Amino acid sequence: MTGHCAEKIDPGNQTVSGVTLEGDPFEFPYDRLLIATGSSAVMPDLTGFDLPGVMVVKSLEDGRKIKTFLKNNRVKKTIIIGMGYIALEMCESLVGLNIAVDMVKPNPMFMPWLASSMARAVKEGLEAKGVGVYAGHKVERIEPFGDGLKVICPDLTLTGDMVLVGIGVNPCSRIAENAGLELGVQKSIAVDRNLRTSNKNIFAAGDCADAFHVVTGERTWIPLALRANRSGWAVADNVCGKDVALDGVAGTAVFRVLDFEVARTGLSVSEAEKFGFEPVENMIKSGSKAHAYPGNTTIMVNMIGDKKSGRLLGAQMVGTEGVAHRINGPAVALHARMTVKQYCQTDLAYAPPFGPTWDPTLTAANQLLKKL
Amino acid sequence: MTGHCAEKIDPGNQTVSGVTLEGDPFEFPYDRLLIATGSSAVMPDLTGFDLPGVMVVKSLEDGRKIKTFLKNNRVKKTIIIGMGYIALEMCESLVGLNIAVDMVKPNPMFMPWLASSMARAVKEGLEAKGVGVYAGHKVERIEPFGDGLKVICPDLTLTGDMVLVGIGVNPCSRIAENAGLELGVQKSIAVDRNLRTSNKNIFAAGDCADAFHVVTGERTWIPLALRANRSGWAVADNVCGKDVALDGVAGTAVFRVLDFEVARTGLSVSEAEKFGFEPVENMIKSGSKAHAYPGNTTIMVNMIGDKKSGRLLGAQMVGTEGVAHRINGPAVALHARMTVKQYCQTDLAYAPPFGPTWDPTLTAANQLLKKL
Repeated sequence: MTGHCAEKIDPGNQTVSGVTLEGDPFEFPYDRLLIATGSSAVMPDLTGFDLPGVMVVKSLEDGRKIKTFLKNNRVKKTIIIGMGYIALEMCESLVGLNIAVDMVKPNPMFMPWLASSMARAVKEGLEAKGVGVYAGHKVERIEPFGDGLKVICPDLTLTGDMVLVGIGVNPCSRIAENAGLELGVQKSIAVDRNLRTSNKNIFAAGDCADAFHVVTGERTWIPLALRANRSGWAVADNVCGKDVALDGVAGTAVFRVLDFEVARTGLSVSEAEKFGFEPVENMIKSGSKAHAYPGNTTIMVNMIGDKKSGRLLGAQMVGTEGVAHRINGPAVALHARMTVKQYCQTDLAYAPPFGPTWDPTLTAANQLLKKL
Repeated sequence: MTGHCAEKIDPGNQTVSGVTLEGDPFEFPYDRLLIATGSSAVMPDLTGFDLPGVMVVKSLEDGRKIKTFLKNNRVKKTIIIGMGYIALEMCESLVGLNIAVDMVKPNPMFMPWLASSMARAVKEGLEAKGVGVYAGHKVERIEPFGDGLKVICPDLTLTGDMVLVGIGVNPCSRIAENAGLELGVQKSIAVDRNLRTSNKNIFAAGDCADAFHVVTGERTWIPLALRANRSGWAVADNVCGKDVALDGVAGTAVFRVLDFEVARTGLSVSEAEKFGFEPVENMIKSGSKAHAYPGNTTIMVNMIGDKKSGRLLGAQMVGTEGVAHRINGPAVALHARMTVKQYCQTDLAYAPPFGPTWDPTLTAANQLLKKL
């Protein structure tokens, strides 16, 4: 029913009501209901964020708006507010268009979930390409400045022709909250492994819903594409009466920014501590190819294990090649609840163009094992 | 003790004897003995294989011989006997030097362990680059031919300036066999998970020794670098009295040949049948990047599961990028004895430059699951 804006769920009467685009009220009964409202980009309620040339990056429509703006304006410099995956991917795209980029965010740590030496490598790589990385500056407002814009922080002012806001997303869970459904982490809609909410006739899937974390066993909200897509498939089966349970997420993610591939799976040390583990981490440097092979570059791998159980808890990786798919080995190991010692035994692929005899994740595991 | 050629092990008296390079006999007593004799390249005992310009590819010395030959001779065309990893890697190197290559072997199947459509893709890729692929021709002899060489099969004659023989290796196990030690697959030295032979004071490690296969649980002989290296580390501990057991191998391997990355882990269908599984395979085509991302290329994934237990048994992959490290996810899953259904649940990395939302190995697993 396109053109129908749902405003209210009445779980008692099993109805959804709202208004049509024409303003007519509607009410539909349901046997089973699926909430798939997604997430929305965070937009600060601050002066100047509604100026032309200030845009978020979330939907296809957002992307088209940005492209149109770039076409109709002479954009030589962009300021990106935020330094997450999306912000960094936008940075790459803009630099690829020969547009200068400054990035700014309040947290003084650049990529706080990465080991600091790894985050530094990426930061220095960005700076070497002329990207301004201003971590530790809270944006107070945006003002027009000539034909462009001025982003104002207490102790920093950045000027540019366009401002992109990539500071995260929130689950669109208000309708669920109003219906009295249980919410989870960051107000995502709490669902069980079958995507069922706290009401047995209502399901939720996609970015609006939470998931279980395979390492902690606890609820988490990591709104990424694979989980959203997979939960869509699974919820369809469950709504239709089949029993399809999802194992959960490992928090596996990868992105590219300029020369770098950055990947992670599982928990960081600080996350692991929060969940009662006794995490130990170890960072190693290895190569993207056999040591004597032309074009060999550095891959940094940080691996985290639990001192109490020996379990592998997570891994992060940074390099200029060979990182993206390499994180999948540790990711599968997290699903299998492997110990670091068990991971050390895995038979991973080797050929000189693709890595050293010991895959960098194996070297990381071997070295971490000594600390456990 | 360099310069000492061991010829005989006497397990009863715990001695090793032989002759020095000077021809003097020696005999050493031992408490524990390690056999690390490696493997040797197979060289057919046929007419003409001893001609100048006919060389095997195994040791560093072999590599240097080939380089010297290339330097001192005008090599415009090479014939490679064999079509395994090493033969194909040599093909790539030679084509990179603008040397024409013909490859020949007796088995009419090109890469028989690959699904036929995947093997065909690689074969056609080689042929498109001008490589002659002559599968199904048994070499009878080699003859001089002008300044070059003539490789003669019953119904085929190939001419070139150099001939490389890459038809596999054999374990150097004669000294172990003569000492009465138990041998395993293909006359490799049978060792337990601690690298101990059938004699409790004698260990063997590296290409000369066998290993357990994590999928079949049975002895296997897959002489690859990681296993050899890992067994070296483990045997040192065991010889010194520590207890370090190895899980085994999954038969994970990757190589590059011209535009292609080819990878495998676990069992092929015919291997799985031999070990009593009821294998089902399914081949899918997916992409190396998100479907709309520039430069997206095809990745073919064949996945094999056991109809009886649901277990993942193996996977093979072919593509021009994004294959090498992607095989590690299924490889770790084999170590964890995962079912195909469990693999389907894994949270693998996604970003548009690196693959589709569903990693190609997940799409393969999802489709295979329908057949199990």
